[in-house]
Amino acid sequence: MNKSGSKLEIAPLQSLIDEGFWHKLTNLKLNHWGLDDSPVSLTGFFAPCSHPKLSNQLTLLSESLPSESSELPSSTSSSHTNRNKCPVPGTLYNLNTMESFNDVDEQQLLKEEAEKIWADIHNGNIETDCARLLRFVVISFADLKKWEFYYRVAFPTLVLHPPATLVDLKPASEWFTVEEAKFVSTACNEWRNSTSTTGVPFFLVTIDSESRATLRDLSEWESCRLENHKILFGFYDPCHSPKHPGWPLCNLLAFLHSRWSLETVNFFCYRESRGFADMKLSLVGEAQISSQDGTDKNHLPQDFGWDLYKRQKKTRSINLATSMDPTRLAESAADLNLKLMRWRALPSLDIALLSSTKCLLIGAGTLGCQVARTLMAWGVRNITLLDNGKVAISNPLRQSLYTLTDCGQDKAVAAANSLKSIYPSVDAKGVVMSIPMPGHPVSIQEEKKIIDDCRQLQDLVNSHDVVFLLTDTRESRWLPTLLCATANKITINAALGFESFLVMRHGYGPLGSSVEAPDVLSSNLGNLSIGDKDGAQRLGCYFCNDVVAPVDSTANRTLDQQCTVTRPGVAPIASALAVELLVGILHHPLGMYAPAEIAGSNGSGSSETPLGILPHQIRGSISQFTQMTLIGHASNSCTACSKIVVSEFEKNGMDFIMKAINHPTYLEDLTGLTELQKSANLFEPDWDYEDELEDDELVEI
Amino acid sequence: MNKSGSKLEIAPLQSLIDEGFWHKLTNLKLNHWGLDDSPVSLTGFFAPCSHPKLSNQLTLLSESLPSESSELPSSTSSSHTNRNKCPVPGTLYNLNTMESFNDVDEQQLLKEEAEKIWADIHNGNIETDCARLLRFVVISFADLKKWEFYYRVAFPTLVLHPPATLVDLKPASEWFTVEEAKFVSTACNEWRNSTSTTGVPFFLVTIDSESRATLRDLSEWESCRLENHKILFGFYDPCHSPKHPGWPLCNLLAFLHSRWSLETVNFFCYRESRGFADMKLSLVGEAQISSQDGTDKNHLPQDFGWDLYKRQKKTRSINLATSMDPTRLAESAADLNLKLMRWRALPSLDIALLSSTKCLLIGAGTLGCQVARTLMAWGVRNITLLDNGKVAISNPLRQSLYTLTDCGQDKAVAAANSLKSIYPSVDAKGVVMSIPMPGHPVSIQEEKKIIDDCRQLQDLVNSHDVVFLLTDTRESRWLPTLLCATANKITINAALGFESFLVMRHGYGPLGSSVEAPDVLSSNLGNLSIGDKDGAQRLGCYFCNDVVAPVDSTANRTLDQQCTVTRPGVAPIASALAVELLVGILHHPLGMYAPAEIAGSNGSGSSETPLGILPHQIRGSISQFTQMTLIGHASNSCTACSKIVVSEFEKNGMDFIMKAINHPTYLEDLTGLTELQKSANLFEPDWDYEDELEDDELVEI
Repeated sequence: MNKSGSKLEIAPLQSLIDEGFWHKLTNLKLNHWGLDDSPVSLTGFFAPCSHPKLSNQLTLLSESLPSESSELPSSTSSSHTNRNKCPVPGTLYNLNTMESFNDVDEQQLLKEEAEKIWADIHNGNIETDCARLLRFVVISFADLKKWEFYYRVAFPTLVLHPPATLVDLKPASEWFTVEEAKFVSTACNEWRNSTSTTGVPFFLVTIDSESRATLRDLSEWESCRLENHKILFGFYDPCHSPKHPGWPLCNLLAFLHSRWSLETVNFFCYRESRGFADMKLSLVGEAQISSQDGTDKNHLPQDFGWDLYKRQKKTRSINLATSMDPTRLAESAADLNLKLMRWRALPSLDIALLSSTKCLLIGAGTLGCQVARTLMAWGVRNITLLDNGKVAISNPLRQSLYTLTDCGQDKAVAAANSLKSIYPSVDAKGVVMSIPMPGHPVSIQEEKKIIDDCRQLQDLVNSHDVVFLLTDTRESRWLPTLLCATANKITINAALGFESFLVMRHGYGPLGSSVEAPDVLSSNLGNLSIGDKDGAQRLGCYFCNDVVAPVDSTANRTLDQQCTVTRPGVAPIASALAVELLVGILHHPLGMYAPAEIAGSNGSGSSETPLGILPHQIRGSISQFTQMTLIGHASNSCTACSKIVVSEFEKNGMDFIMKAINHPTYLEDLTGLTELQKSANLFEPDWDYEDELEDDELVEI
Repeated sequence: MNKSGSKLEIAPLQSLIDEGFWHKLTNLKLNHWGLDDSPVSLTGFFAPCSHPKLSNQLTLLSESLPSESSELPSSTSSSHTNRNKCPVPGTLYNLNTMESFNDVDEQQLLKEEAEKIWADIHNGNIETDCARLLRFVVISFADLKKWEFYYRVAFPTLVLHPPATLVDLKPASEWFTVEEAKFVSTACNEWRNSTSTTGVPFFLVTIDSESRATLRDLSEWESCRLENHKILFGFYDPCHSPKHPGWPLCNLLAFLHSRWSLETVNFFCYRESRGFADMKLSLVGEAQISSQDGTDKNHLPQDFGWDLYKRQKKTRSINLATSMDPTRLAESAADLNLKLMRWRALPSLDIALLSSTKCLLIGAGTLGCQVARTLMAWGVRNITLLDNGKVAISNPLRQSLYTLTDCGQDKAVAAANSLKSIYPSVDAKGVVMSIPMPGHPVSIQEEKKIIDDCRQLQDLVNSHDVVFLLTDTRESRWLPTLLCATANKITINAALGFESFLVMRHGYGPLGSSVEAPDVLSSNLGNLSIGDKDGAQRLGCYFCNDVVAPVDSTANRTLDQQCTVTRPGVAPIASALAVELLVGILHHPLGMYAPAEIAGSNGSGSSETPLGILPHQIRGSISQFTQMTLIGHASNSCTACSKIVVSEFEKNGMDFIMKAINHPTYLEDLTGLTELQKSANLFEPDWDYEDELEDDELVEI
């Protein structure tokens, strides 16, 4: 209990930070601030105490931070203000490392903040915006990888020397007459209920000789004092204690003493009960101030005020990972690496473009699994995998989306499910189908199914932005290549040898009519001499540029050839390069129309993007540890992407496809090439095995 | 029912192939035959019929195939022969592709086999080894990827023209007198019970005038015929039918007619019941042969005889995948790709060496996961992962051994479990520990733990053959590098930049005394001028050859630096190359002592292995799509691998380590380098967070 003449003791504020604050801080940090750690304006909220459990709290909510769109601080007089949220200004120092968080010179920081208050006192700002007396500071470090937030909160306080003396402190109901108390209550309730004053935490209470009370702005003090009324300095008191005034009194006394040289102050700790002024809970007291230096505006009082947590000045931390929705948490975490890339290494990274790009992966084997994983890591969120196989027991060791429990399942489906186990909100689909292949004649009965397959594949190609060719045969790449050339889709091809690989992007399609050039293209085409659209300078496709030994057919392949036996290091490298090539295309201003660049050829007029060069073909050998880039132009007699083939397909559609499938020499005849060889009919083995051998089956001899 | 004078009809044999046969065939194919598809000698087994359910069967067991060790065919008179397993010779044509299986010229094949029988008849081999009359053929294709086996079995038959005529056929009990039957039974049981005759399927039955029966070898026919006894030609009859003799009669008749010009043959179809001769089940008949060409040994009778399955000549298949133990199945499947590599691409691949090599992976993050996967694909079966972290939500997208369900688990443990889900019998362990780091001073209290950690790490290094350094800081590589240099372990280092990587092998250790050179080394060291062991020509370690910008400390790293933000394609490439580099070292005759080679430098005296060149360092840039090999020699003042440092460690052990940890300039002083920078103390944040703020905590103002 403060006795008369004792030192004034005040209950400190404590911070209560809502999780929403940290979520928004995370978004701002990742999307806007990056490495910028300049101070950020905050708005804290408090209110007169109305419940013992909510005593002495300053609350930070998501709206305490600047809005994401404008990056402007939320206005302290925003519509968020209401009787339970009196706004006070604060400053956030969010630091980039744990070390700098820990190394903050707290005294210096507090001094700077106290100086702001001191300046506001002396330049008259407090009279117009008294909440500035309650300025606060937050320093924090957000470990966004672990969703762990470290922070300290301080309330800079202007300390009087010698300390103020408390002459009297009692419940307002005892200090006021019954009449006065009634009038004060009414006046306070009006003040609190008016939108123009509910957010103003300091005020004058004047009581005239007829016990009528009025609440006014602090700025009216000069005129009030002439009226010879009783004057009290009121403030919203967040403290519940009947023995102690709350925190706002500290700086109020410093203000009154420094600005107006008051030495005796009657103060009114305004508190509420159930939303109404409560004169029994509210306190009135008298403080005596006898500071020598208080009025010297060039002399800043000592500052003071770190949020004392359990009586020790300690860093507090909160981990939000456990409270978040797992899917949302995964999404945030997934984007983390990408957003971090933009901070420093790759500011031009277009995360939105990547996440909206639809990728069709033809083949869900060793290459398909690894390509899908790398696409996900780059932020691609729409992935369709196409495969007709089932997961075999030998697959999981090399095909990184499968475990043994997937064996026997359709690969395409198992792969899509596996992607979801890594990132639940990925839009991953599995399509189980075979790719019709040229030179593999089919019977009349099968023809309808083949045509259906062709149509389904065409629909898939048309509904995606990018097609990856990741199968293990040459013929299975033909139809997708043709469909991509026709629909003018970005096409990335990866093919493996035993210890070598080829990764390439196909050129754009041969038909000017179907080319939808991006806007930027029209202005750049001239400069870059992409050439005429008949393909003279078009980049080639896999069938134009056959640089790995072609595997002509699935027929007559021994087991080591069927399994596409390769050194295990080859596929991860080819897959990684295939995805990096795509990311390069997507970030190039000319996209798929970008000319090919060669490694080490800078200065040759290449328009190198922040991602690096954009080659046409990359060939690598794992036995020689070499890698090289090559350019191959489109061939006018290519069986898959030449104008004559694409035109014929556009004209005759499925008829053309069936001719190519059924007549091994058709494409050859059409283009004049002997590119695709005949292949034997696929043998259909008798799957039926029974142990029971029947007796008495007789043959004549 | 064969009536007198009707055409002789015979029940065909059917093959019954035990699963063990296919398992052994798989092993032989993978481990011995490879692409060699030459014919293989087989031994089939049959026995006189003793049960209706086991009628007309020729059985193939695992012992039907050559033994794996000698690759010699199991002898037909092997100890496996017993009364239920009369051995007959066969030939296996196991083809490499489904197409060649399907394209086999069956008539030609049968003709070749029939010619062997024909030759045996005319050169007298049948008299000494009558089982040759029952020669059979198997053609097969083993799809070892799917554990699916396709096969057909044929029994070449010498067909008589015109066909033999059956004059009489009745149960032996009716044909013989009671006396004769008793004697024949006794003689048969003796023949069957003698180890020297139980495997002889054809025999003479002679019955003298006193009804006494004797069984003799076919070769005794010439002498028997002079005795004027009743003579029957007996054979083990696998057929159960009372109406038809079994298959062995066909070629027996052809033999008797061709070899001895017999035109009337009394035959005895020997059958059993409960292991004893059964005269009611056994048949006796008389066949009339009137072939014109039967005796012309230059004229081969028509061959005939594919195993008729359900009356159609069909390929049969069996899939063993479902019947196998899942773990064993996974093991077999896992080895498949490796064994297939040896068929053609890499005959010198040492699978046993790979599977016995113990790898310690320091770091189970992006690199660690991918390295572990690639090691598994190469057949490495002993993998220990060391990491002190837990799986975070952002990890699964790039760290390919984790899914979201692993979040919060220790990475090392989750990674080991994940490897088992791919390959259950891998010996994968997870060790949760931190790596003590130089220049990170520790308190006295922590010292014991640090020393324990050092000892544990040393034990781990010593108990493995290879150490991979895959952490994300420079300092964490120091102690493992030192321990590896001391213990002379193969050390592979992979380090990532944002869009670049370094993969290197460390040179061998600096101390001659601790170097256990392989035998081959002593004879090669001179030629290869590896140089003196003081390190003049030793290859450098990561600290000798600091080619990526060193990250000196975990202190003051912003979030994008902490997360080792890299383009997603970098880690898979570096990981793949790191493992390929190890495989190259393991296959080099000089192992870790192999000199460094540079890409494209063939002809410069390099001893290129079948796996390719063996570089020292590989640096790559993903933005330039380039990759290069470099050589850096060991530095005499290296802080991790120089003689002075290793000697000091050997002399002072943990004292030395603690000095390096606690005194940032110690290593510098020792080596004269300023390599390792001071780093700030690690900050220990207050983890404790509570929402309840206590009221009435007072401070004076």
